[in-house]
Amino acid sequence: MISKNTLKFIKSLQQKKFRKQEDAFFVEGAKNVTELLLSDFEVTHLLYTAKYHEEHSQLISSSNAASHEVSPKTLESAGSFKTNDAALAVAKIKKNTPFDIRKGELAIALDDVRDPGNLGTIIRIADWYGIHKLVLSSQTADFYNPKVLHSSMGSFTRVSFFYTDLEAYLPQQPLPVYGAFLEGENIHKRTLAPEGIILMGNEANGISPRLEKMVTEKLTIPRFGHAESLNVAIATAVICDNFRRGG
Amino acid sequence: MISKNTLKFIKSLQQKKFRKQEDAFFVEGAKNVTELLLSDFEVTHLLYTAKYHEEHSQLISSSNAASHEVSPKTLESAGSFKTNDAALAVAKIKKNTPFDIRKGELAIALDDVRDPGNLGTIIRIADWYGIHKLVLSSQTADFYNPKVLHSSMGSFTRVSFFYTDLEAYLPQQPLPVYGAFLEGENIHKRTLAPEGIILMGNEANGISPRLEKMVTEKLTIPRFGHAESLNVAIATAVICDNFRRGG
Repeated sequence: MISKNTLKFIKSLQQKKFRKQEDAFFVEGAKNVTELLLSDFEVTHLLYTAKYHEEHSQLISSSNAASHEVSPKTLESAGSFKTNDAALAVAKIKKNTPFDIRKGELAIALDDVRDPGNLGTIIRIADWYGIHKLVLSSQTADFYNPKVLHSSMGSFTRVSFFYTDLEAYLPQQPLPVYGAFLEGENIHKRTLAPEGIILMGNEANGISPRLEKMVTEKLTIPRFGHAESLNVAIATAVICDNFRRGG
Repeated sequence: MISKNTLKFIKSLQQKKFRKQEDAFFVEGAKNVTELLLSDFEVTHLLYTAKYHEEHSQLISSSNAASHEVSPKTLESAGSFKTNDAALAVAKIKKNTPFDIRKGELAIALDDVRDPGNLGTIIRIADWYGIHKLVLSSQTADFYNPKVLHSSMGSFTRVSFFYTDLEAYLPQQPLPVYGAFLEGENIHKRTLAPEGIILMGNEANGISPRLEKMVTEKLTIPRFGHAESLNVAIATAVICDNFRRGG
Protein backbone atom coordinates (compact mmCIF):
# COMPACT_ATOMS: atom_id res chain seq x y z
CA MET A 1 0.00 0.00 0.00
CA ILE A 2 1.13 3.47 -0.80
CA SER A 3 0.82 5.89 2.10
CA LYS A 4 -1.41 8.95 2.18
CA ASN A 5 1.66 11.03 2.89
CA THR A 6 3.40 9.86 -0.27
CA LEU A 7 0.33 10.70 -2.35
CA LYS A 8 0.17 14.12 -0.71
CA PHE A 9 3.89 14.62 -1.40
CA ILE A 10 3.44 13.76 -5.10
CA LYS A 11 0.41 16.02 -5.41
CA SER A 12 2.34 18.92 -3.91
CA LEU A 13 4.91 18.63 -6.75
CA GLN A 14 2.39 20.16 -9.15
CA GLN A 15 3.48 23.45 -7.59
CA LYS A 16 6.87 24.95 -8.36
CA LYS A 17 7.32 26.02 -4.74
CA PHE A 18 7.19 22.42 -3.53
CA ARG A 19 9.26 21.08 -6.42
CA LYS A 20 11.98 23.50 -5.37
CA GLN A 21 11.62 22.71 -1.69
CA GLU A 22 11.68 18.94 -2.25
CA ASP A 23 14.13 19.03 -5.17
CA ALA A 24 11.79 16.62 -6.93
CA PHE A 25 9.31 16.44 -9.83
CA PHE A 26 6.98 13.84 -11.30
CA VAL A 27 5.99 12.62 -14.74
CA GLU A 28 2.88 10.72 -15.81
CA GLY A 29 1.77 8.38 -18.57
CA ALA A 30 3.45 5.38 -20.19
CA LYS A 31 5.63 7.30 -22.64
CA ASN A 32 7.14 9.80 -20.22
CA VAL A 33 7.62 7.34 -17.35
CA THR A 34 9.33 4.85 -19.67
CA GLU A 35 11.65 7.54 -21.03
CA LEU A 36 12.40 8.67 -17.47
CA LEU A 37 13.29 5.13 -16.37
CA LEU A 38 15.64 4.79 -19.36
CA SER A 39 17.35 8.13 -18.62
CA ASP A 40 20.01 9.21 -16.14
CA PHE A 41 17.47 10.90 -13.86
CA GLU A 42 17.42 9.51 -10.31
CA VAL A 43 13.93 8.04 -9.91
CA THR A 44 12.79 7.85 -6.30
CA HIS A 45 9.16 6.71 -6.54
CA LEU A 46 7.42 4.59 -9.14
CA LEU A 47 3.67 3.96 -9.21
CA TYR A 48 2.36 1.66 -11.92
CA THR A 49 -0.75 -0.27 -12.85
CA ALA A 50 -0.93 -4.00 -13.50
CA LYS A 51 -1.21 -3.15 -17.19
CA TYR A 52 2.01 -1.09 -17.22
CA HIS A 53 3.76 -3.85 -15.24
CA GLU A 54 2.79 -6.42 -17.84
CA GLU A 55 4.49 -4.42 -20.58
CA HIS A 56 7.48 -3.09 -18.65
CA SER A 57 8.25 -5.60 -15.89
CA GLN A 58 12.00 -5.60 -16.56
CA LEU A 59 12.22 -1.84 -16.54
CA ILE A 60 10.36 -1.76 -13.23
CA SER A 61 12.47 -4.43 -11.57
CA SER A 62 15.74 -2.81 -12.66
CA SER A 63 14.77 0.49 -11.03
CA ASN A 64 15.95 1.43 -7.55
CA ALA A 65 12.83 3.49 -6.90
CA ALA A 66 10.30 2.71 -4.18
CA SER A 67 7.77 0.91 -6.39
CA HIS A 68 4.06 0.29 -5.89
CA GLU A 69 1.43 -1.34 -8.03
CA VAL A 70 -1.65 0.88 -7.81
CA SER A 71 -5.00 1.41 -9.50
CA PRO A 72 -5.55 3.95 -12.32
CA LYS A 73 -7.70 5.81 -9.80
CA THR A 74 -4.73 6.27 -7.47
CA LEU A 75 -2.58 7.54 -10.37
CA GLU A 76 -5.27 10.02 -11.29
CA SER A 77 -5.64 11.27 -7.74
CA ALA A 78 -1.86 11.70 -7.34
CA GLY A 79 -1.14 13.32 -10.69
CA SER A 80 -2.56 15.93 -13.05
CA PHE A 81 -3.95 13.65 -15.79
CA LYS A 82 -7.70 13.07 -16.01
CA THR A 83 -7.04 9.47 -16.99
CA ASN A 84 -3.85 7.50 -16.45
CA ASP A 85 -3.90 3.72 -16.65
CA ALA A 86 -0.13 3.37 -16.89
CA ALA A 87 2.32 4.95 -14.45
CA LEU A 88 3.66 7.94 -12.55
CA ALA A 89 7.21 8.46 -11.34
CA VAL A 90 9.00 10.91 -9.08
CA ALA A 91 12.62 11.88 -9.75
CA LYS A 92 15.24 14.25 -8.39
CA ILE A 93 15.65 17.64 -10.03
CA LYS A 94 19.06 18.02 -11.70
CA LYS A 95 21.47 20.72 -10.55
CA ASN A 96 21.33 23.96 -12.53
CA THR A 97 24.81 23.57 -14.02
CA PRO A 98 25.83 26.10 -16.68
CA PHE A 99 27.64 24.91 -19.79
CA ASP A 100 29.11 26.57 -22.85
CA ILE A 101 28.05 26.13 -26.46
CA ARG A 102 31.05 24.83 -28.36
CA LYS A 103 32.11 25.51 -31.93
CA GLY A 104 30.16 23.31 -34.33
CA GLU A 105 27.17 23.05 -31.97
CA LEU A 106 23.67 24.36 -32.53
CA ALA A 107 21.77 25.42 -29.37
CA ILE A 108 18.49 27.13 -28.51
CA ALA A 109 18.14 29.99 -26.01
CA LEU A 110 14.70 31.09 -24.79
CA ASP A 111 14.02 34.65 -23.67
CA ASP A 112 11.04 34.41 -21.29
CA VAL A 113 8.92 31.79 -23.08
CA ARG A 114 6.18 31.65 -20.46
CA ASP A 115 3.72 29.06 -21.70
CA PRO A 116 4.52 25.54 -20.43
CA GLY A 117 3.00 23.96 -23.57
CA ASN A 118 5.30 26.05 -25.76
CA LEU A 119 8.40 25.11 -23.74
CA GLY A 120 7.49 21.40 -23.86
CA THR A 121 6.88 21.56 -27.60
CA ILE A 122 10.20 23.36 -28.15
CA ILE A 123 12.00 20.62 -26.17
CA ARG A 124 10.40 18.02 -28.47
CA ILE A 125 11.42 20.03 -31.57
CA ALA A 126 15.00 20.40 -30.28
CA ASP A 127 15.18 16.64 -29.76
CA TRP A 128 13.78 15.97 -33.28
CA TYR A 129 16.37 18.25 -34.86
CA GLY A 130 19.25 16.87 -32.79
CA ILE A 131 19.76 20.00 -30.70
CA HIS A 132 20.87 18.94 -27.24
CA LYS A 133 21.50 22.21 -25.46
CA LEU A 134 18.86 24.65 -24.22
CA VAL A 135 19.67 27.84 -22.33
CA LEU A 136 16.67 29.31 -20.52
CA SER A 137 16.15 32.81 -19.16
CA SER A 138 15.03 32.88 -15.54
CA GLN A 139 11.50 34.01 -16.50
CA THR A 140 11.01 31.08 -18.89
CA ALA A 141 8.45 28.48 -17.78
CA ASP A 142 9.70 25.89 -15.29
CA PHE A 143 11.19 22.87 -17.09
CA TYR A 144 9.72 20.55 -14.41
CA ASN A 145 6.14 21.85 -14.72
CA PRO A 146 3.96 18.77 -15.45
CA LYS A 147 2.59 20.45 -18.61
CA VAL A 148 6.11 21.07 -19.95
CA LEU A 149 7.16 17.48 -19.36
CA HIS A 150 3.91 16.15 -20.84
CA SER A 151 4.11 18.16 -24.05
CA SER A 152 7.79 17.26 -24.47
CA MET A 153 6.61 13.66 -25.08
CA GLY A 154 9.64 12.15 -23.39
CA SER A 155 12.16 14.43 -25.10
CA PHE A 156 12.88 16.18 -21.79
CA THR A 157 15.25 13.30 -20.95
CA ARG A 158 17.41 14.00 -24.01
CA VAL A 159 18.24 17.69 -23.68
CA SER A 160 20.66 19.48 -21.36
CA PHE A 161 19.51 22.80 -20.02
CA PHE A 162 20.07 25.41 -17.37
CA TYR A 163 18.51 28.69 -16.31
CA THR A 164 20.61 31.83 -16.41
CA ASP A 165 20.71 35.54 -17.13
CA LEU A 166 21.01 35.54 -20.93
CA GLU A 167 22.29 39.12 -20.95
CA ALA A 168 25.40 37.98 -19.10
CA TYR A 169 25.63 34.58 -20.78
CA LEU A 170 25.26 35.26 -24.51
CA PRO A 171 28.28 37.60 -24.92
CA GLN A 172 30.53 34.91 -23.42
CA GLN A 173 29.74 32.47 -26.22
CA PRO A 174 32.05 32.77 -29.24
CA LEU A 175 29.27 31.88 -31.68
CA PRO A 176 26.70 33.71 -33.80
CA VAL A 177 23.38 34.45 -32.08
CA TYR A 178 20.41 34.14 -34.46
CA GLY A 179 17.08 35.78 -33.69
CA ALA A 180 13.80 35.98 -35.61
CA PHE A 181 12.59 39.51 -36.37
CA LEU A 182 10.07 40.89 -38.83
CA GLU A 183 12.81 42.93 -40.54
CA GLY A 184 15.52 40.25 -40.63
CA GLU A 185 17.05 38.41 -43.57
CA ASN A 186 14.78 35.99 -45.44
CA ILE A 187 15.65 32.57 -44.04
CA HIS A 188 14.88 30.95 -47.41
CA LYS A 189 17.59 33.00 -49.12
CA ARG A 190 20.30 32.11 -46.63
CA THR A 191 22.51 29.08 -46.37
CA LEU A 192 22.65 28.51 -42.64
CA ALA A 193 25.51 26.54 -41.13
CA PRO A 194 24.21 24.50 -38.18
CA GLU A 195 26.37 26.29 -35.64
CA GLY A 196 25.37 28.95 -33.18
CA ILE A 197 22.60 29.92 -30.78
CA ILE A 198 19.00 30.31 -31.95
CA LEU A 199 17.39 32.86 -29.64
CA MET A 200 13.58 32.77 -29.43
CA GLY A 201 11.51 35.44 -27.66
CA ASN A 202 8.51 35.82 -25.39
CA GLU A 203 5.04 34.95 -26.73
CA ALA A 204 3.72 38.51 -26.54
CA ASN A 205 6.82 40.68 -26.79
CA GLY A 206 9.34 38.71 -28.83
CA ILE A 207 13.03 39.14 -28.07
CA SER A 208 13.56 41.84 -25.44
CA PRO A 209 15.52 44.98 -26.42
CA ARG A 210 18.33 44.16 -23.98
CA LEU A 211 18.92 40.85 -25.76
CA GLU A 212 18.27 42.17 -29.27
CA LYS A 213 21.65 43.93 -29.04
CA MET A 214 23.34 40.54 -28.75
CA VAL A 215 21.74 39.08 -31.85
CA THR A 216 24.43 38.93 -34.51
CA GLU A 217 22.15 37.68 -37.32
CA LYS A 218 18.52 38.77 -37.66
CA LEU A 219 16.41 36.28 -39.57
CA THR A 220 12.85 36.40 -40.92
CA ILE A 221 10.52 33.55 -41.78
CA PRO A 222 8.94 34.88 -44.97
CA ARG A 223 5.19 35.44 -44.85
CA PHE A 224 2.96 34.73 -47.84
CA GLY A 225 -0.41 35.61 -46.28
CA HIS A 226 -1.79 37.84 -43.56
CA ALA A 227 -1.32 36.27 -40.12
CA GLU A 228 0.42 38.80 -37.87
CA SER A 229 2.87 36.31 -36.41
CA LEU A 230 3.60 32.66 -35.79
CA ASN A 231 3.45 30.93 -32.41
CA VAL A 232 6.96 30.72 -30.85
CA ALA A 233 7.12 26.91 -30.99
CA ILE A 234 6.04 26.94 -34.65
CA ALA A 235 8.69 29.55 -35.47
CA THR A 236 11.33 27.53 -33.61
CA ALA A 237 10.51 24.44 -35.68
CA VAL A 238 10.66 26.30 -38.99
CA ILE A 239 13.99 27.91 -38.06
CA CYS A 240 15.50 24.59 -36.90
CA ASP A 241 14.33 22.96 -40.13
CA ASN A 242 16.04 25.68 -42.16
CA PHE A 243 19.27 25.26 -40.18
CA ARG A 244 19.22 21.50 -40.73
CA ARG A 245 18.45 21.47 -44.43
CA GLY A 246 22.03 22.38 -45.35
CA GLY A 247 23.19 24.41 -48.35
CA MET B 1 -28.56 46.72 -20.42
CA ILE B 2 -27.91 43.34 -21.89
CA SER B 3 -30.56 40.77 -20.99
CA LYS B 4 -29.96 37.64 -18.97
CA ASN B 5 -31.33 35.63 -21.87
CA THR B 6 -28.75 37.02 -24.28
CA LEU B 7 -25.95 36.17 -21.85
CA LYS B 8 -27.37 32.68 -21.46
CA PHE B 9 -27.60 32.33 -25.25
CA ILE B 10 -23.93 33.36 -25.68
CA LYS B 11 -22.81 31.03 -22.93
CA SER B 12 -24.63 28.12 -24.58
CA LEU B 13 -22.53 28.64 -27.74
CA GLN B 14 -19.53 27.14 -25.95
CA GLN B 15 -21.18 23.81 -26.77
CA LYS B 16 -21.21 22.48 -30.32
CA LYS B 17 -24.79 21.25 -29.93
CA PHE B 18 -26.07 24.78 -29.34
CA ARG B 19 -23.83 26.33 -31.99
CA LYS B 20 -25.43 23.96 -34.48
CA GLN B 21 -28.94 24.56 -33.18
CA GLU B 22 -28.55 28.35 -33.20
CA ASP B 23 -26.31 28.51 -36.30
CA ALA B 24 -24.12 30.90 -34.35
CA PHE B 25 -20.72 31.14 -32.65
CA PHE B 26 -18.81 33.71 -30.63
CA VAL B 27 -15.28 35.06 -30.44
CA GLU B 28 -13.53 36.89 -27.62
CA GLY B 29 -10.69 39.32 -27.09
CA ALA B 30 -9.66 42.46 -28.98
CA LYS B 31 -7.74 40.75 -31.79
CA ASN B 32 -10.36 38.18 -32.77
CA VAL B 33 -13.36 40.53 -32.42
CA THR B 34 -11.64 43.18 -34.52
CA GLU B 35 -10.78 40.65 -37.23
CA LEU B 36 -14.36 39.39 -37.14
CA LEU B 37 -15.79 42.89 -37.57
CA LEU B 38 -13.49 43.44 -40.55
CA SER B 39 -14.50 40.14 -42.19
CA ASP B 40 -17.52 39.05 -44.22
CA PHE B 41 -19.03 37.16 -41.28
CA GLU B 42 -22.51 38.36 -40.29
CA VAL B 43 -22.07 39.68 -36.74
CA THR B 44 -25.31 39.65 -34.73
CA HIS B 45 -24.22 40.69 -31.22
CA LEU B 46 -21.36 42.85 -30.08
CA LEU B 47 -20.39 43.35 -26.44
CA TYR B 48 -17.52 45.72 -25.73
CA THR B 49 -15.93 47.58 -22.85
CA ALA B 50 -15.39 51.32 -22.66
CA LYS B 51 -11.70 50.63 -23.34
CA TYR B 52 -12.41 48.71 -26.56
CA HIS B 53 -14.85 51.43 -27.63
CA GLU B 54 -12.18 54.09 -27.21
CA GLU B 55 -9.88 52.28 -29.63
CA HIS B 56 -12.46 50.98 -32.11
CA SER B 57 -15.41 53.38 -32.07
CA GLN B 58 -15.69 53.54 -35.86
CA LEU B 59 -15.61 49.80 -36.26
CA ILE B 60 -18.36 49.49 -33.64
CA SER B 61 -20.58 52.16 -35.14
CA SER B 62 -20.28 50.73 -38.65
CA SER B 63 -21.48 47.31 -37.45
CA ASN B 64 -25.12 46.26 -37.81
CA ALA B 65 -24.90 44.03 -34.72
CA ALA B 66 -26.94 44.59 -31.57
CA SER B 67 -24.25 46.40 -29.57
CA HIS B 68 -23.84 46.87 -25.83
CA GLU B 69 -21.18 48.49 -23.74
CA VAL B 70 -20.55 46.16 -20.81
CA SER B 71 -18.05 45.58 -18.00
CA PRO B 72 -15.10 43.18 -18.27
CA LYS B 73 -16.94 41.10 -15.66
CA THR B 74 -19.91 40.65 -17.99
CA LEU B 75 -17.59 39.62 -20.84
CA GLU B 76 -15.94 37.09 -18.58
CA SER B 77 -19.24 35.64 -17.42
CA ALA B 78 -20.54 35.35 -21.01
CA GLY B 79 -17.40 33.91 -22.61
CA SER B 80 -14.68 31.37 -21.93
CA PHE B 81 -11.76 33.71 -21.13
CA LYS B 82 -10.66 34.15 -17.54
CA THR B 83 -10.01 37.80 -18.24
CA ASN B 84 -11.38 39.89 -21.09
CA ASP B 85 -11.33 43.67 -20.91
CA ALA B 86 -12.05 44.18 -24.61
CA ALA B 87 -14.94 42.58 -26.47
CA LEU B 88 -17.00 39.54 -27.43
CA ALA B 89 -19.03 39.11 -30.61
CA VAL B 90 -21.57 36.60 -31.90
CA ALA B 91 -21.78 35.80 -35.62
CA LYS B 92 -23.67 33.46 -37.93
CA ILE B 93 -22.03 30.18 -38.89
CA LYS B 94 -21.25 30.00 -42.62
CA LYS B 95 -22.85 27.34 -44.78
CA ASN B 96 -20.79 24.20 -45.29
CA THR B 97 -20.21 24.78 -49.01
CA PRO B 98 -17.79 22.42 -50.77
CA PHE B 99 -15.27 23.84 -53.24
CA ASP B 100 -12.61 22.38 -55.47
CA ILE B 101 -8.87 22.97 -55.31
CA ARG B 102 -7.82 24.46 -58.62
CA LYS B 103 -4.58 24.01 -60.55
CA GLY B 104 -1.88 26.25 -59.15
CA GLU B 105 -3.42 26.29 -55.67
CA LEU B 106 -1.98 24.87 -52.47
CA ALA B 107 -4.52 23.58 -49.92
CA ILE B 108 -4.47 21.71 -46.61
CA ALA B 109 -6.70 18.72 -45.80
CA LEU B 110 -7.00 17.44 -42.23
CA ASP B 111 -7.78 13.81 -41.45
CA ASP B 112 -9.35 13.82 -37.98
CA VAL B 113 -7.21 16.44 -36.24
CA ARG B 114 -9.08 16.34 -32.93
CA ASP B 115 -7.37 18.90 -30.73
CA PRO B 116 -8.92 22.39 -31.01
CA GLY B 117 -5.58 24.06 -30.24
CA ASN B 118 -3.93 22.17 -33.11
CA LEU B 119 -6.69 23.12 -35.57
CA GLY B 120 -6.51 26.79 -34.55
CA THR B 121 -2.72 26.80 -34.87
CA ILE B 122 -2.93 25.15 -38.30
CA ILE B 123 -5.38 27.86 -39.44
CA ARG B 124 -2.87 30.51 -38.33
CA ILE B 125 -0.04 28.68 -40.16
CA ALA B 126 -2.16 28.37 -43.33
CA ASP B 127 -2.85 32.12 -43.19
CA TRP B 128 0.86 32.91 -42.67
CA TYR B 129 1.85 30.81 -45.68
CA GLY B 130 -0.92 32.20 -47.90
CA ILE B 131 -2.95 28.98 -48.02
CA HIS B 132 -6.62 29.92 -48.21
CA LYS B 133 -8.37 26.58 -48.54
CA LEU B 134 -8.82 23.99 -45.80
CA VAL B 135 -10.73 20.75 -46.28
CA LEU B 136 -11.69 19.09 -43.01
CA SER B 137 -12.74 15.49 -42.32
CA SER B 138 -15.97 15.22 -40.36
CA GLN B 139 -14.12 14.00 -37.23
CA THR B 140 -11.80 17.02 -37.20
CA ALA B 141 -12.36 19.48 -34.31
CA ASP B 142 -15.17 21.99 -34.80
CA PHE B 143 -13.91 25.14 -36.53
CA TYR B 144 -16.23 27.27 -34.35
CA ASN B 145 -14.99 25.86 -31.03
CA PRO B 146 -13.86 28.88 -28.94
CA LYS B 147 -10.40 27.30 -28.46
CA VAL B 148 -9.96 26.88 -32.23
CA LEU B 149 -10.93 30.49 -32.93
CA HIS B 150 -8.74 31.76 -30.10
CA SER B 151 -5.60 29.91 -31.16
CA SER B 152 -6.14 30.97 -34.79
CA MET B 153 -5.39 34.56 -33.61
CA GLY B 154 -7.83 36.09 -36.08
CA SER B 155 -6.70 33.99 -39.05
CA PHE B 156 -10.03 32.11 -39.00
CA THR B 157 -11.52 35.02 -40.96
CA ARG B 158 -9.07 34.56 -43.83
CA VAL B 159 -9.46 30.88 -44.72
CA SER B 160 -12.22 29.07 -46.59
CA PHE B 161 -13.11 25.64 -45.30
CA PHE B 162 -15.72 22.93 -45.34
CA TYR B 163 -16.25 19.54 -43.72
CA THR B 164 -16.54 16.50 -45.93
CA ASP B 165 -15.74 12.83 -46.39
CA LEU B 166 -12.13 13.05 -47.59
CA GLU B 167 -12.28 9.51 -49.01
CA ALA B 168 -14.89 10.68 -51.51
CA TYR B 169 -13.44 14.17 -51.99
CA LEU B 170 -9.72 13.65 -52.59
CA PRO B 171 -9.98 11.44 -55.71
CA GLN B 172 -12.10 14.13 -57.39
CA GLN B 173 -9.29 16.69 -57.20
CA PRO B 174 -6.90 16.62 -60.20
CA LEU B 175 -3.90 17.53 -58.05
CA PRO B 176 -1.13 15.72 -56.18
CA VAL B 177 -1.95 14.77 -52.58
CA TYR B 178 1.08 15.09 -50.26
CA GLY B 179 1.22 13.27 -46.94
CA ALA B 180 3.89 13.05 -44.24
CA PHE B 181 5.04 9.52 -43.42
CA LEU B 182 8.11 8.16 -41.65
CA GLU B 183 9.15 6.31 -44.82
CA GLY B 184 8.49 9.11 -47.33
CA GLU B 185 10.89 11.14 -49.44
CA ASN B 186 13.15 13.57 -47.57
CA ILE B 187 11.46 16.95 -47.91
CA HIS B 188 14.86 18.70 -47.91
CA LYS B 189 15.91 16.83 -51.04
CA ARG B 190 12.81 17.69 -53.03
CA THR B 191 11.89 20.79 -54.96
CA LEU B 192 8.23 21.18 -54.15
CA ALA B 193 5.99 23.19 -56.46
CA PRO B 194 3.37 25.03 -54.38
CA GLU B 195 0.44 23.21 -55.95
CA GLY B 196 -1.60 20.38 -54.51
CA ILE B 197 -3.18 19.20 -51.28
CA ILE B 198 -1.15 18.73 -48.11
CA LEU B 199 -2.89 16.01 -46.09
CA MET B 200 -2.17 15.95 -42.35
CA GLY B 201 -3.28 13.12 -40.06
CA ASN B 202 -4.71 12.54 -36.62
CA GLU B 203 -2.59 13.33 -33.52
CA ALA B 204 -2.30 9.71 -32.38
CA ASN B 205 -2.75 7.68 -35.55
CA GLY B 206 -1.48 9.84 -38.39
CA ILE B 207 -3.10 9.51 -41.81
CA SER B 208 -5.68 6.70 -41.81
CA PRO B 209 -5.08 3.69 -44.09
CA ARG B 210 -8.17 4.49 -46.19
CA LEU B 211 -6.73 7.92 -47.03
CA GLU B 212 -3.11 6.74 -47.31
CA LYS B 213 -4.13 5.09 -50.61
CA MET B 214 -4.93 8.52 -52.03
CA VAL B 215 -1.59 10.07 -51.16
CA THR B 216 0.33 10.46 -54.42
CA GLU B 217 3.56 11.75 -52.82
CA LYS B 218 4.82 10.55 -49.46
CA LEU B 219 7.08 13.04 -47.74
CA THR B 220 9.27 12.87 -44.63
CA ILE B 221 10.57 15.65 -42.43
CA PRO B 222 14.09 14.42 -41.74
CA ARG B 223 14.91 13.72 -38.12
CA PHE B 224 18.33 14.48 -36.65
CA GLY B 225 17.68 13.41 -33.05
CA HIS B 226 15.48 11.00 -31.15
CA ALA B 227 11.97 12.42 -30.69
CA GLU B 228 9.46 9.84 -31.95
CA SER B 229 7.36 12.34 -33.84
CA LEU B 230 6.45 16.00 -34.22
CA ASN B 231 3.13 17.56 -33.18
CA VAL B 232 0.77 17.81 -36.18
CA ALA B 233 0.71 21.63 -36.18
CA ILE B 234 4.52 21.74 -36.03
CA ALA B 235 4.76 19.27 -38.93
CA THR B 236 2.24 21.30 -40.94
CA ALA B 237 4.33 24.46 -40.50
CA VAL B 238 7.56 22.76 -41.54
CA ILE B 239 5.91 21.24 -44.63
CA CYS B 240 4.29 24.56 -45.64
CA ASP B 241 7.64 26.30 -45.22
CA ASN B 242 9.29 23.75 -47.50
CA PHE B 243 6.56 24.19 -50.13
CA ARG B 244 6.95 27.96 -50.03
CA ARG B 245 10.73 28.13 -50.21
CA GLY B 246 10.75 27.40 -53.91
CA GLY B 247 13.42 25.60 -55.88
